[in-house]
Amino acid sequence: MTTTNTITTTPKITLMGAGPGSPDLITVRGLRALRTANVVLYDALANPELLKSAPADALKINVGKRANKHHYTQAAINLMTVGYAFSHGHVVRLKGGDPFIFGRGQEELQYAESFGIETVIVPGLSSSTALAGLQQVPLTHRHYSQGFWVLTATTKYGTLPHDFYLAAQSNSTLVILMGLRKLPQIVHFLQQQGKQDTPVMVIQNGSLPQEKVALGTVATIEKAVAEQQLSTPAIIVVGQVVALHPALAKNYAVQANQSN
Amino acid sequence: MTTTNTITTTPKITLMGAGPGSPDLITVRGLRALRTANVVLYDALANPELLKSAPADALKINVGKRANKHHYTQAAINLMTVGYAFSHGHVVRLKGGDPFIFGRGQEELQYAESFGIETVIVPGLSSSTALAGLQQVPLTHRHYSQGFWVLTATTKYGTLPHDFYLAAQSNSTLVILMGLRKLPQIVHFLQQQGKQDTPVMVIQNGSLPQEKVALGTVATIEKAVAEQQLSTPAIIVVGQVVALHPALAKNYAVQANQSN
Repeated sequence: MTTTNTITTTPKITLMGAGPGSPDLITVRGLRALRTANVVLYDALANPELLKSAPADALKINVGKRANKHHYTQAAINLMTVGYAFSHGHVVRLKGGDPFIFGRGQEELQYAESFGIETVIVPGLSSSTALAGLQQVPLTHRHYSQGFWVLTATTKYGTLPHDFYLAAQSNSTLVILMGLRKLPQIVHFLQQQGKQDTPVMVIQNGSLPQEKVALGTVATIEKAVAEQQLSTPAIIVVGQVVALHPALAKNYAVQANQSN
Repeated sequence: MTTTNTITTTPKITLMGAGPGSPDLITVRGLRALRTANVVLYDALANPELLKSAPADALKINVGKRANKHHYTQAAINLMTVGYAFSHGHVVRLKGGDPFIFGRGQEELQYAESFGIETVIVPGLSSSTALAGLQQVPLTHRHYSQGFWVLTATTKYGTLPHDFYLAAQSNSTLVILMGLRKLPQIVHFLQQQGKQDTPVMVIQNGSLPQEKVALGTVATIEKAVAEQQLSTPAIIVVGQVVALHPALAKNYAVQANQSN
């Protein structure tokens, strides 16, 4: 007598951005894919509310760095994603923001493809582009900024990346991710570049009910962040466009008139 | 006898990003707002498929620059948005990409608020962040690029913006919007900066069935664009991350080995 185990599932991976925080800022394409998941592997920055959109019997596994006791390395996440695709079928890998913007999504994609598993990419709304607008601050404006530059403040050497020197010379809006712990260094650097009066906005938990926003200039933003007790995860926006924030715009109009 | 006309509608404007092209790349929040629209004013870059999600009896007006015979100025669009809010209630202003990234959304917002009309912002997936990922090209990658810079190639003076000089010195990925007509100038400039071998990707109609992609280096991209007959609207992505595109990655791995 022989026993035959037939594999009935077709392995498939959807590498998906969950958006910047609020569950309804996922894309329609993303939501549809989530509804067909057999397994969801989700990050700390992906809103757990979204799990309700996955089938009730789907496995839901928190692989975020802040996951209870366990710390999952990138290698472990890669292996789990592929392993569950073989064993369970459709794995949705749900990452905060967009999977390919500081998300190491490409490394996960490459690993999955090395096993020949069909991998679909669903882009997500990146906090780098979505959160300033929700504060009525445009990243570009024909009078103030002809572009925007998204940077991380974190390098493996602990110093600010070289691109910060270029960024300080540009009139593009700067959006700094993973930078709040480096705020004193960033402020010091921008002051050295003569930018003490440039408006700055820091947004924590953007688009969520617990959102906090600190506003000021390079010279004053540290105080504002401390007063409002902001912490990570947060993004930092630096540039003249920040002066268009409703809480600053009135002041700014007065100042602009005085300087004429 | 007196006649009284009672206004029963509450004016409201939703300033919304439609995403980069494919209708299912709108956000869930955006789709829900669209379903309650009394009027939709939509741009050339917003997918008209989305209009099917608005109520059947909603007014749908194409105010894009390519709208049939009529050319709507920004002032006319502002006025129509506010006028329809007063006369019809909920106006959805549906813009391609994100309303605040090269979208003049802030100017529309400011105009609406000057009439005291409640205006809700719904961010959209910007082509600048979403389209490269759909090509399996990450905008950031810990080995190649610690950031990305979104620029427009179009200034009112006809020259490339000053920030291009800074961009050429950076290792961030460049994403150039509204740049295809300036491709010869961009190529010439990047060659002068010694970047002839930097990989380049041009995407036309990204995320749509008629999507076209040209791949090459600074030195070869013009030929690739001509061969594949790409035209506007298109985005240009410049940087080492482009070498991760599946059609280039194999070549690139060989080259990388040879240079070791």
